[in-house]
Amino acid sequence: MAKGITTRAEDYSRWYLDVIQAADLAEHSSVKGCMVIKPNGYALWENIQGQLDKMFKETGHVNAYFPMLIPESFLKKEAEHVEGFAPECAVVTQGGGKRLEEALVIRPTSETIIWSTYKKWIQSYRDLPILINQWANVVRWEMRTRLFLRTTEFLWQEGHTAHASNEEAQRETMQMIDVYRRFAEEYLAAPVYVGYKTEREKFAGAVRTYCIEAMMQDRKALQAGTSHHLGQNFAKAFDVTFQDENGKLDYVWATSWGVSTRLIGALIMVHSDDNGLVIPPRLAPIEVVVIPIWKNDAEIEGMRRRIAELTEAWKGRLRFKVDDRDQFRPGYKFNEWEKRGVPIRIEIGPRELENNQVVLVRRDTGEKMLLPQDGLLDKIKELLEQIQSDLFNKAKSFRDANTMPEDDYEQFKKKIEEPGGFFRVHWCGSAECENQFQETSKATIRLIPIDGEKEQGRCLVCGKPSEQRVLVAKSY
Amino acid sequence: MAKGITTRAEDYSRWYLDVIQAADLAEHSSVKGCMVIKPNGYALWENIQGQLDKMFKETGHVNAYFPMLIPESFLKKEAEHVEGFAPECAVVTQGGGKRLEEALVIRPTSETIIWSTYKKWIQSYRDLPILINQWANVVRWEMRTRLFLRTTEFLWQEGHTAHASNEEAQRETMQMIDVYRRFAEEYLAAPVYVGYKTEREKFAGAVRTYCIEAMMQDRKALQAGTSHHLGQNFAKAFDVTFQDENGKLDYVWATSWGVSTRLIGALIMVHSDDNGLVIPPRLAPIEVVVIPIWKNDAEIEGMRRRIAELTEAWKGRLRFKVDDRDQFRPGYKFNEWEKRGVPIRIEIGPRELENNQVVLVRRDTGEKMLLPQDGLLDKIKELLEQIQSDLFNKAKSFRDANTMPEDDYEQFKKKIEEPGGFFRVHWCGSAECENQFQETSKATIRLIPIDGEKEQGRCLVCGKPSEQRVLVAKSY
Repeated sequence: MAKGITTRAEDYSRWYLDVIQAADLAEHSSVKGCMVIKPNGYALWENIQGQLDKMFKETGHVNAYFPMLIPESFLKKEAEHVEGFAPECAVVTQGGGKRLEEALVIRPTSETIIWSTYKKWIQSYRDLPILINQWANVVRWEMRTRLFLRTTEFLWQEGHTAHASNEEAQRETMQMIDVYRRFAEEYLAAPVYVGYKTEREKFAGAVRTYCIEAMMQDRKALQAGTSHHLGQNFAKAFDVTFQDENGKLDYVWATSWGVSTRLIGALIMVHSDDNGLVIPPRLAPIEVVVIPIWKNDAEIEGMRRRIAELTEAWKGRLRFKVDDRDQFRPGYKFNEWEKRGVPIRIEIGPRELENNQVVLVRRDTGEKMLLPQDGLLDKIKELLEQIQSDLFNKAKSFRDANTMPEDDYEQFKKKIEEPGGFFRVHWCGSAECENQFQETSKATIRLIPIDGEKEQGRCLVCGKPSEQRVLVAKSY
Repeated sequence: MAKGITTRAEDYSRWYLDVIQAADLAEHSSVKGCMVIKPNGYALWENIQGQLDKMFKETGHVNAYFPMLIPESFLKKEAEHVEGFAPECAVVTQGGGKRLEEALVIRPTSETIIWSTYKKWIQSYRDLPILINQWANVVRWEMRTRLFLRTTEFLWQEGHTAHASNEEAQRETMQMIDVYRRFAEEYLAAPVYVGYKTEREKFAGAVRTYCIEAMMQDRKALQAGTSHHLGQNFAKAFDVTFQDENGKLDYVWATSWGVSTRLIGALIMVHSDDNGLVIPPRLAPIEVVVIPIWKNDAEIEGMRRRIAELTEAWKGRLRFKVDDRDQFRPGYKFNEWEKRGVPIRIEIGPRELENNQVVLVRRDTGEKMLLPQDGLLDKIKELLEQIQSDLFNKAKSFRDANTMPEDDYEQFKKKIEEPGGFFRVHWCGSAECENQFQETSKATIRLIPIDGEKEQGRCLVCGKPSEQRVLVAKSY
């Protein structure tokens, strides 16, 4: 156990929690199931938010805010929805010192409060589409929690759109799952499979749920984002109709889509190693840390001045930090920034100063290089992009190597235990066989690929004909 | 009632709500006391957030997130705090389908959950200071609500800092009230008085509450931000001690400070007029709207092309929108953007195109000017700054003209009714006289000025000696 971090090989779950602690990202609170997101963890969330918010706005969405408290009766208006969410709700029964006439639930998701509002906003096709996103906290009562991956309260964004046609809602649903795919791949550097959920696994109230699924280093799946085509279900539940161009009344079509602080769990589990957190440069709150090394105090001031000169041109172009604290030794600092996942460390000692050089160390590979100070900014910029794509490629190789077709049920049951991975198997489409997968292997159908090739085969469980492989894995 | 907006003279309260509706900022929700912040309103909040967040970070703060649900017992640990907040709490008594052993309150403010956490983080002076801010929603049960000004749920930020000395906590408290003052004056364009609250009006649990108070156009006061020196009250309640440099144990010193979506109410009431919202340029989601005017459809494409050429250089340098919707007439659009408070409107018709000119109209003054297209961007930039400072100066003149000393209690009681305003009066410092003010006039002591000149006088109510004037007004 180096530096207080259990190795992945030894105990993967423990490693995950150790990395969170070593990088000082979050901790359990005194409130059951709820976490405290510490400044280092929240800085990751701010970067995730910033980038996603930009992508949402580029696709025409605006932000708004709806009440967190929802009358219990609203939740009950959509039958599947209440069945799915009521057991997870936190319920407010007192307010202002009095017992409430109608209990209020803390939003587990906001379809019901939002569609009760959209009813007031929508009369005609001219009022459509509505393209709204909300950044918010939600509460879903959880028995077994794990920092970032599953907590009673979590932070997320939820898009809620309203459309005049099924086709337009379908396009929106697909657009947003693709935004999530791009974000996961280009920013989290986490390759994802895209597909849709089975009836059993879909969102309570959706017609179809699209999802992105990423592979963690223990070969388990993590659902990293979902985009739901809600059809007219919520419009019917809340009686939201519109007059089309020909004066005909119809129910409004809907989508909703969301990602949460769970993405931080994905970031940790896709890239980090036994030395701690590894952050993809594009989401790193600090991209570069500069650590001056001096032997005697007389050198400090000169060193500080030279580093100030060197980094002057970096301001506004690079997120960097100079760690010139004098109560800690360089080795301590190297270790600290390594644990915290800063992509590039730069060391400057008297010799480097003299030779107009720096030592640069990559967090992801540990590679050490001696570089001239001239042109350093450009070189760093280039390296950060290199690290970003190397992290993605490494994760993709790992995932691809651990995604495999399997046509033998007995083999499947063995392999899902050891070594694990994503299994592409034929499935007849029945709920019975889907349940069988889970009961025998604790694995679930993660998704049905959207661009999956048609292929004649036989259901892994019952042997009935199947036309497409689905993705099965154990998951978080 | 022009354009659906009641005039201020006719009914100020109604005018306020009409402006919110005309600018499409927010509405009441189906949940008692809670509002829906619509996209136009939320865009203002995003700009307020963006600027404040920058100012917090420039003063060394970082963001984090603490649970929204607080065990009831935590609230009870600080005697004044629970007395102040318990009557306003929303209480969760059920979770996950079961009755909770201990009820949880939805945070009305987060001192208790945060100080129960800081206890784990602080052992030594080396762990100090902690300079954390949180962007969050809070719930305070309200009987009489008003959009933005007083709602059961609202959005805010709350800073919570921990320090090794009383002096340092005092400096932080003053630094943050000054950040708020600067934000109010330089961004909201709202001049504010700075001071501290009486014992009766201070935050429940604070040693001293500093505040900024702005004057609305009906001459009432609005508390726009508060910064609390909490002394060692919360450290004692949660037993948070630290070892100082000499090894001596002491309780930690604390501050907290916050502003909320109430600032949007201030923005509306300080600047808007009988034609609708007026937004200070620095906070305007759209600074300039460009409205092309064409007579026949043949002109449209040429017009669009020329406007695209003209605005090409504005991208990334100006927040602008070209309103070339063809289903609406120019007059309709002028009215719409006026109601919504966009600081500058630019009209371009065939004649302006031909003469290489534009018509520019200021939202705040209605002033109309004919300007050459050459150098237009610079001229717009200059005008936006001019509008920003004109709005501030206009509000300041109004406030100064309506802030006056008063030494006669009978006169005071008359004047506070009509015309109203801020009254600088002598007060002996007793709670009895403070209560008298309120009972006879519905006005309260808004603040005791921090830089108030010493002046010998006699309490307006009881005639006992007083050494300083305080600010008294009716308020929101």
